[in-house]
Amino acid sequence: MPDQAALSRMAQKLRRVCLESTAEAGSGHPTSCMSAAEIVSVLFFDEMRWDPRDPSGRRADVFVLSKGHAAPILWAALHEAGAIDDDPMTLRRHDSRLEGHPTPLVPWVRVATGSLGQGLCAAAGMAWARKLDDEPGRVYALLGDGEVAEGSVWEAAEFASCNGLANLCAVIDLNRLGQSGPTMHQHHAEVYERRLQAFGWDTAVVDGHDLAALQEAFARARRASRPFGIVALTLKGKGVSFLEDKEGWHGKPVKKGDELARAVAELGDTSLRLRVEPRRYDGEPRPAEAAIALTPAYEKGQEVATREAFGAALAKLAKSAPQVVALDGDTKNSTFSEKFKAVAPERFVEAYIAEQDMVGVALGMSTEGKVPIASTFACFLTRAYDFIRMAVYSRPRHLVLCGSHAGVSIGEDGPSQMALEDLAMMRALVKATVLYPSDAVSAERAVEAAARTEGVVYIRTSRPKTPVLYANDEPFPVGGSKTLRQSGKDAVTIVAAGVTVFEALTAHDRLQKEGVAVRVIDLYSVQPLDTETLRRAAAETRGIITVEDHSVRGGLGEAVAAAVSGRTRVQILGVRDLPRSGKPAELLRAHGIDADAIVRAVREF
Amino acid sequence: MPDQAALSRMAQKLRRVCLESTAEAGSGHPTSCMSAAEIVSVLFFDEMRWDPRDPSGRRADVFVLSKGHAAPILWAALHEAGAIDDDPMTLRRHDSRLEGHPTPLVPWVRVATGSLGQGLCAAAGMAWARKLDDEPGRVYALLGDGEVAEGSVWEAAEFASCNGLANLCAVIDLNRLGQSGPTMHQHHAEVYERRLQAFGWDTAVVDGHDLAALQEAFARARRASRPFGIVALTLKGKGVSFLEDKEGWHGKPVKKGDELARAVAELGDTSLRLRVEPRRYDGEPRPAEAAIALTPAYEKGQEVATREAFGAALAKLAKSAPQVVALDGDTKNSTFSEKFKAVAPERFVEAYIAEQDMVGVALGMSTEGKVPIASTFACFLTRAYDFIRMAVYSRPRHLVLCGSHAGVSIGEDGPSQMALEDLAMMRALVKATVLYPSDAVSAERAVEAAARTEGVVYIRTSRPKTPVLYANDEPFPVGGSKTLRQSGKDAVTIVAAGVTVFEALTAHDRLQKEGVAVRVIDLYSVQPLDTETLRRAAAETRGIITVEDHSVRGGLGEAVAAAVSGRTRVQILGVRDLPRSGKPAELLRAHGIDADAIVRAVREF
Repeated sequence: MPDQAALSRMAQKLRRVCLESTAEAGSGHPTSCMSAAEIVSVLFFDEMRWDPRDPSGRRADVFVLSKGHAAPILWAALHEAGAIDDDPMTLRRHDSRLEGHPTPLVPWVRVATGSLGQGLCAAAGMAWARKLDDEPGRVYALLGDGEVAEGSVWEAAEFASCNGLANLCAVIDLNRLGQSGPTMHQHHAEVYERRLQAFGWDTAVVDGHDLAALQEAFARARRASRPFGIVALTLKGKGVSFLEDKEGWHGKPVKKGDELARAVAELGDTSLRLRVEPRRYDGEPRPAEAAIALTPAYEKGQEVATREAFGAALAKLAKSAPQVVALDGDTKNSTFSEKFKAVAPERFVEAYIAEQDMVGVALGMSTEGKVPIASTFACFLTRAYDFIRMAVYSRPRHLVLCGSHAGVSIGEDGPSQMALEDLAMMRALVKATVLYPSDAVSAERAVEAAARTEGVVYIRTSRPKTPVLYANDEPFPVGGSKTLRQSGKDAVTIVAAGVTVFEALTAHDRLQKEGVAVRVIDLYSVQPLDTETLRRAAAETRGIITVEDHSVRGGLGEAVAAAVSGRTRVQILGVRDLPRSGKPAELLRAHGIDADAIVRAVREF
Repeated sequence: MPDQAALSRMAQKLRRVCLESTAEAGSGHPTSCMSAAEIVSVLFFDEMRWDPRDPSGRRADVFVLSKGHAAPILWAALHEAGAIDDDPMTLRRHDSRLEGHPTPLVPWVRVATGSLGQGLCAAAGMAWARKLDDEPGRVYALLGDGEVAEGSVWEAAEFASCNGLANLCAVIDLNRLGQSGPTMHQHHAEVYERRLQAFGWDTAVVDGHDLAALQEAFARARRASRPFGIVALTLKGKGVSFLEDKEGWHGKPVKKGDELARAVAELGDTSLRLRVEPRRYDGEPRPAEAAIALTPAYEKGQEVATREAFGAALAKLAKSAPQVVALDGDTKNSTFSEKFKAVAPERFVEAYIAEQDMVGVALGMSTEGKVPIASTFACFLTRAYDFIRMAVYSRPRHLVLCGSHAGVSIGEDGPSQMALEDLAMMRALVKATVLYPSDAVSAERAVEAAARTEGVVYIRTSRPKTPVLYANDEPFPVGGSKTLRQSGKDAVTIVAAGVTVFEALTAHDRLQKEGVAVRVIDLYSVQPLDTETLRRAAAETRGIITVEDHSVRGGLGEAVAAAVSGRTRVQILGVRDLPRSGKPAELLRAHGIDADAIVRAVREF
């Protein structure tokens, strides 16, 4: 292992590369890297056991850079260690993998960071999965002090101690200066230490530029029986006199030329090559995996809420697919994820009322080969929107989110519990799959598809019981739809999903008695969309009426309007006004999304 | 003042009303009310100084029920105190103001609650505004223990201690049982106390059913020089043997008839009337208010980023309108809200990196007559989506949010810093205004309109500098648009907003040279939409091309597609793929939203 002189020189070299690469890019955060140089040097070249040839992380320690704006020092360390060949001087270029904040374009990046306060949640998810699988490798997360103001950090701290994640070590780079001024507690390390301890962590406060002190703290962390937090007192811009501990230098590179030369000169001799000797843990971890397949077994007409069918499907996966893990935010008896817990309690995570952490933890688990399925009321997933957005950039193999209690049809609990924006927020994601089953069979198929589909998948379930519509062998491919009623003389097409499918069917029957034929489509796949079927309906009928238990904006209706634009007229029925408590049927009526409203709309067409 | 025997009997009476009203409704959370009965009895009938005839809260203490599912006991207490006439037995009915969770349909409810973990943020905002105005009334917040798992609670705790809010008192109703099982720390009051202390609060741990202990704790809170937290050990369902401290009773009413009768019988004699004697503080608070009016003073062609114009407009409001307060999440030098701070530091809140708390605090301030304007990077407002959603239900007089650095045009920082979903999430809100200025003049007018418009208003600003397009006296009414280029023979209409307006203008000029006339509309008001102008364009040109620096789903394009559905074809140009770091121009090109892409789209039309 390198001696402290070498580690010290490596820290200076990392500083130099960060100064040079950000100067070359003309943007970036060199001073935020420089405070962490000794921490990164010790972690990558001494403390962590890893193999620079293998980014899988198997039988090795892994690292999460929660303070994502310090990306240049991560790129520099990986490059110095021989883990990547990318030239650090291509930082932030459009043709470079070395982005301004870490993304998995570089395979060593397990989760995208840069929205602060998220890394520790993901790291805790990794640590949890590793504990489950007897994976001996540890998880290290490097946080900035500014981001510790995010409540999600404390949700993660709670999760880690509650789950006994002694394989998790967090370092807070206490460099005193945020983006726009000093942090709240500046160099008061004792504030951070007291809080970590109050959240059940073991701690050390160290001089973050003292290699020996860091090494000793990491050694203590390895021996600890609880998650370990190292509060590292550092200076932003450390090593260069005109940057060190100075305000006004956040997110600013030094200028190429004289300024850069002066800065680099202060770092002294940085000539050094340190290759990381591949080190791995003994003992084979025991992750298990099986094919994902479900076969619904319902009877047509049987009354089952889609949320309940979701839970039943989870329970089947609990039995058959050991890679599936389930998480819930203290709503397991409402989302019915408790059915999973009943079968496989060791793979069920009670995330309590902390939705940001729940999603972050699930993302972390996915990097360990798990298929995480996290559920809560759909409206409370709005809480985790930033985490979900970042999860998309993390390009997870699997991340399934289920939101129950969608729309006004939940009834008496009132607007705070009604998801009316979830379809919009999930659809707007640059890459995600959105499924919205209407009955038990399609709900079970949605779970099956979600667990098989790559990336972020959202399933929207409903509170009310609905009759089983589909045969058990009915396929529900992602991107499809089901045309439930159709004739040669359909006047109008009604596009519905979830609970409104049944309103549409009732409207169909009522109109049929009047001699008016309408087509009814169950648009269970909201994203991607079955554009072909919608366009055929646009061509074959005089117009489309969409009806959704969701805001009129950003959901089903606008998706359809965009898909058939220029082909036919789309009238969108959805929630336009502030809802209030009431019976489900009263609310569907009040907001104009029940069968009566559909019949009226068809007549007006 | 009532003696302890009366307060004790009132607690039992409140329990009785909660049991009866939820039994009548057939749903609701009686046991979550019963644990808090002594706390509520002491607060409303002894501790708080208030006037049941005046919900304004002026020179009086105010109350926030953060554990919103305990709404029935709030309704019961207000009814018993003579503050409302509504019959508690109408609970959760569609024609009743007494919703399942508190909403301001009842004017005593200052902020809607029911999504847990939000009440303390709002309460802290109220306390901050009261401190600013020398309003002597105190702020009380009642939290559940389950919701303390939400990180936002700790963001609020930090905010309160950091801002020295000694006028704030929080009570944690430590009833041990969450929705779906025991909380993480059950009755370990010391865990909560240690954490509150670690976050800078003074604390007391009490038996939450001991009236004297509660009274003494509240007295200590009044004397404290810091925010004060009371950890109240309670039993869920307290007072009824078959409910008390029992699992499986969350969110379940007892059955009308025998079960209800047995429960009520256990409460003993509840015959009692206690009217609250109106009490107010001496001393007149000093809130100040002035008309909101701005006059931009830019020169056409001047290069100014809309974010900078936003900051300049804020600074003007800082001078002219004392009711305006500004908040920022450690991005003030990027959003330019620092210009407000420079003028009125006492009305500027550094919310640090805690966006949920920032929005919650702002909402709380709005209930005190402030016009809060909160800013951060637009992408980080996703973090506060649940707070924004709940803010809509709080029907605030004013709540202005500004998100800067929208879209891929931010360039090198990469996807984590790019807002691509913000228009979708803000549009999907059942009631909100969304403004997206393209130049400095429209940005200043957006700030003016936002500060005057009722409810939640979102302003989207951009990072790059753009030339001033408009005359300083150009009006920008909410719901309007600007047709920038128009002729009698326009082939196609291009609808743009923000940075893409300039791409559209470039495309226009290029096409003009080829002899192709196109109409160009700046759709600065994204919600509400200028449907009339869009429909005229649909009628007068062969189609509409929308172009936005945002996801193709849920934004400008779909809004337009829905508005002109059946009238013309809309082609949506927007971000479809995961972006990465690069130069702004490279990214506009890569994602097909630059002038070239528009020209191509026009040609294909």
